[in-house]
Amino acid sequence: MIARLIAGRRQPDAVAVGPGDDAAVLLAGDGRVVVSTDMLIENRHFRLDWSTPHDVGRKAVAQNAADIEAMGARPTAFVVGFGAPPETPAEQVSALADGMWEEAGRLGAGIVGGDLVSSPQWVVSMTVLGDLDGRGPVLRSGARPGSRLAVAGQAGQSAAGYTLWHKGIEGFDDLRHRHLVPQPPYGQGSAAADADAQAMIDISDGLIADLGHLAEASGVTVDLGTEALSADRDALLGAAEAAGVDAWTWVLGGGEDHALVAAFAGPIPAGWRVIGRVLDGPARVLVDGAQWHGYTGWQSFGAR
Amino acid sequence: MIARLIAGRRQPDAVAVGPGDDAAVLLAGDGRVVVSTDMLIENRHFRLDWSTPHDVGRKAVAQNAADIEAMGARPTAFVVGFGAPPETPAEQVSALADGMWEEAGRLGAGIVGGDLVSSPQWVVSMTVLGDLDGRGPVLRSGARPGSRLAVAGQAGQSAAGYTLWHKGIEGFDDLRHRHLVPQPPYGQGSAAADADAQAMIDISDGLIADLGHLAEASGVTVDLGTEALSADRDALLGAAEAAGVDAWTWVLGGGEDHALVAAFAGPIPAGWRVIGRVLDGPARVLVDGAQWHGYTGWQSFGAR
Repeated sequence: MIARLIAGRRQPDAVAVGPGDDAAVLLAGDGRVVVSTDMLIENRHFRLDWSTPHDVGRKAVAQNAADIEAMGARPTAFVVGFGAPPETPAEQVSALADGMWEEAGRLGAGIVGGDLVSSPQWVVSMTVLGDLDGRGPVLRSGARPGSRLAVAGQAGQSAAGYTLWHKGIEGFDDLRHRHLVPQPPYGQGSAAADADAQAMIDISDGLIADLGHLAEASGVTVDLGTEALSADRDALLGAAEAAGVDAWTWVLGGGEDHALVAAFAGPIPAGWRVIGRVLDGPARVLVDGAQWHGYTGWQSFGAR
Repeated sequence: MIARLIAGRRQPDAVAVGPGDDAAVLLAGDGRVVVSTDMLIENRHFRLDWSTPHDVGRKAVAQNAADIEAMGARPTAFVVGFGAPPETPAEQVSALADGMWEEAGRLGAGIVGGDLVSSPQWVVSMTVLGDLDGRGPVLRSGARPGSRLAVAGQAGQSAAGYTLWHKGIEGFDDLRHRHLVPQPPYGQGSAAADADAQAMIDISDGLIADLGHLAEASGVTVDLGTEALSADRDALLGAAEAAGVDAWTWVLGGGEDHALVAAFAGPIPAGWRVIGRVLDGPARVLVDGAQWHGYTGWQSFGAR
């Protein structure tokens, strides 16, 4: 099975030793390497009656890649641990790998190693490596009062899609697919670093929740403007009506979009939209200058 | 829980950004990074009625580290995905992390990131990064006829321990513990690389099985001498008698010891014992010049 998964894949130039030995060897010309890991458990982080194996592969790569982007780096390579019941059809495993390769291909990255084991349910554990290309890493802790907050990517789409799936509402195919396969704004992490972003985070828990992490790490107050987010809300209005939900709860509280949010003291780079300001004050998130009392955090359908 | 797991841990100097941001940043002065991953599933790769959580943590680090050693590199950092039922006591999670840190400490390495999720059973997925310190990676494919094969570490101890546990035989505490926590010969991978090892592999599937991988990758015949392995067998004789097993099946067929085997054209470094020769011929493993018909591969108690 492993030989079949490896066969015919084209590794990027940065892969000095690919799969098939005890370990892989990657070039890291920067002299530093960025690393992050995420574990996806069947029926917690994905359902195989909603997602195809190909979707699951894409999602695992995308959400890992977003963590590297959020450091201002470029994802270069992935390793994957995959557990599944022994009776899992080989075609499903191949489709999972194909999804991973398709998404990694969008990044110019490769899957350089893995482990395939027997497990009562599907488990996909992915680790991503990235390169800073000479840039300084953009941490959560650097936001300073006076700077502007901006977002790259959309907010609330994954949460909207989840609600549609959960309530069995047909149509809105794009939104439902966004829940299965997030689409982080690839390349915008390093673009933000090039524009001297002070602090950055990816939206995995929800816009307000993740801004809370940034506010906490930076020791600042963050003031989010709903006016600037109205395009995100408007894109969800049809689905919100069908689902009987206030679209703002998706935009402000919905996670798993893996959009990027960053603080900039200077010019905002192309592809980013200003959505708020960094203020002097206690670590907290305001919405239009006031405390927000709505739904602030996102959990996938199981506890995490 | 994550904050508790991170608190008070001392990261190595090579960790530029540790846990708590979207990703970690490690120094990779060599300009290359070595990476490998292994996934451990409860009741497949460990049992919590045999192993303590601390043992599981040590095992996960040790077997990952061995893959880096087998490339001639030095393990520098680990990231870990951990899944467990929500009702898992916090003390068990702390003990798992303590075991990981203890074993990583023997290597001068750190745990730099992770993901903690809910799962029906324990899943430990570990990824290890390593540094070649300017050496060339030692692959499985470089063994040439005329060279000598040598081993660092013991063979058969984990398999002996497994049989003792499985049959409920008391005593032989060292062997039973070796099954729970393998003890790879840390530092011998880079020592072998410094001694110009042509090819290297760690013993995870079994001595004959893994030499088969090396023979296959190198396109050579490997001839293993039992005389040179008699010390490994002798160490197991008491347990073999108690279990009613031929100790050779453990030495030649038992996996998970994570000893290292390498081929050397020149002098054998300290800490290594010659156990055979590399011959011109088809890719196969001989024992004392003849085909071996015994037990040749190791599986942990579940299918893998």
